[in-house]
Amino acid sequence: MRFSKGRNFMFRVPEGRELVGFINEFAKKNNVLIGTVSAIGTLRNPKIGYFLETEKKYKVMELSGVYELVSLSGNISLKDGESFAHIHVALGDSEGKLWGGHLVEGEVFVAEVYIQELLGEPLERKPQENGLTLWDAEPL
Amino acid sequence: MRFSKGRNFMFRVPEGRELVGFINEFAKKNNVLIGTVSAIGTLRNPKIGYFLETEKKYKVMELSGVYELVSLSGNISLKDGESFAHIHVALGDSEGKLWGGHLVEGEVFVAEVYIQELLGEPLERKPQENGLTLWDAEPL
Amino acid sequence: MRFSKGRNFMFRVPEGRELVGFINEFAKKNNVLIGTVSAIGTLRNPKIGYFLETEKKYKVMELSGVYELVSLSGNISLKDGESFAHIHVALGDSEGKLWGGHLVEGEVFVAEVYIQELLGEPLERKPQENGLTLWDAEPL
Repeated sequence: MRFSKGRNFMFRVPEGRELVGFINEFAKKNNVLIGTVSAIGTLRNPKIGYFLETEKKYKVMELSGVYELVSLSGNISLKDGESFAHIHVALGDSEGKLWGGHLVEGEVFVAEVYIQELLGEPLERKPQENGLTLWDAEPL
Repeated sequence: MRFSKGRNFMFRVPEGRELVGFINEFAKKNNVLIGTVSAIGTLRNPKIGYFLETEKKYKVMELSGVYELVSLSGNISLKDGESFAHIHVALGDSEGKLWGGHLVEGEVFVAEVYIQELLGEPLERKPQENGLTLWDAEPL
Repeated sequence: MRFSKGRNFMFRVPEGRELVGFINEFAKKNNVLIGTVSAIGTLRNPKIGYFLETEKKYKVMELSGVYELVSLSGNISLKDGESFAHIHVALGDSEGKLWGGHLVEGEVFVAEVYIQELLGEPLERKPQENGLTLWDAEPL
């Protein structure tokens, strides 16, 4: 689907906030209905998810300690009529090894976030048979 | 080189499609000649490449199973006169460990893709002595 | 904070240049005061940092050899009155394993960089008690 550009936000999240919740609240408060999100920083005790296709649910892994937020890639669209951010992260430990997956939650030590709003027809997540909530697929 | 902004596309690739081929076909069909591409999702049996400088070719590694597509970063430019996507990925396994490199191919379970078109003078990949096809380098 | 879009730059860095220094010089030369930066490519002997909260400084790790630059995510803002790029990277070794953190430096074998300028009020890094230089945090 094709969109036009909307507003651009770049900001630092206050230390101690939970990152996924903060981004969702930010999108709702600013009425960002569609967009992309990226960030770098440092997270404490992040929880990451790996989707178990056969069980149709996420396996959640709790990483303890402080991790560099090496990449955060995601998008914002509608789920149950509200702005919803879907976010994946790569996290670096003190040895430089990377861990990651779907970001379930993470406490902010530092988070420098960029949100680009897109404007156009609503992009909505709908429950699928596979257990996920997804946009309609678009064949070529 | 400096570009202006073109169109913005955000879409879900149908399950079962091969992701690199789909992005290339999408760019060709929509006449995206220059751009950036990013995505998150889940891939099955991805093949990743590591460039062997001395052998001037990619070592291809086949990862078996399902991997979270933690990040997909790339660009679109011209190669042999056609739109061509150069894509790197980070992939998370069921233990949260990350793997990655140049994306050779991967079957889509879920892929939520964002493509930003850029407009301007053609940016062309040309064969280099090192075995890669690259744009002309730009000194400061 | 809210910004409007500025210029867009996509270019290949010449082989042999140090990447962090090149991006900073590029931003200064082109007067990019605020922006985002991303890249893919291949780096030689990158040095990555992990922030030690208790010691208030980075632990620097030197990776030897050639690594796929799987993702580079960052932003540009002002530090000491000059354009300054804050960059995190994911790096792939010859076995496809990923390493990463804060990019301290890395020699370019290949780097395809995208810089998006943002326009608006200056976004400035200021020294914090935790040892980092950060923008003012923005509560919701």
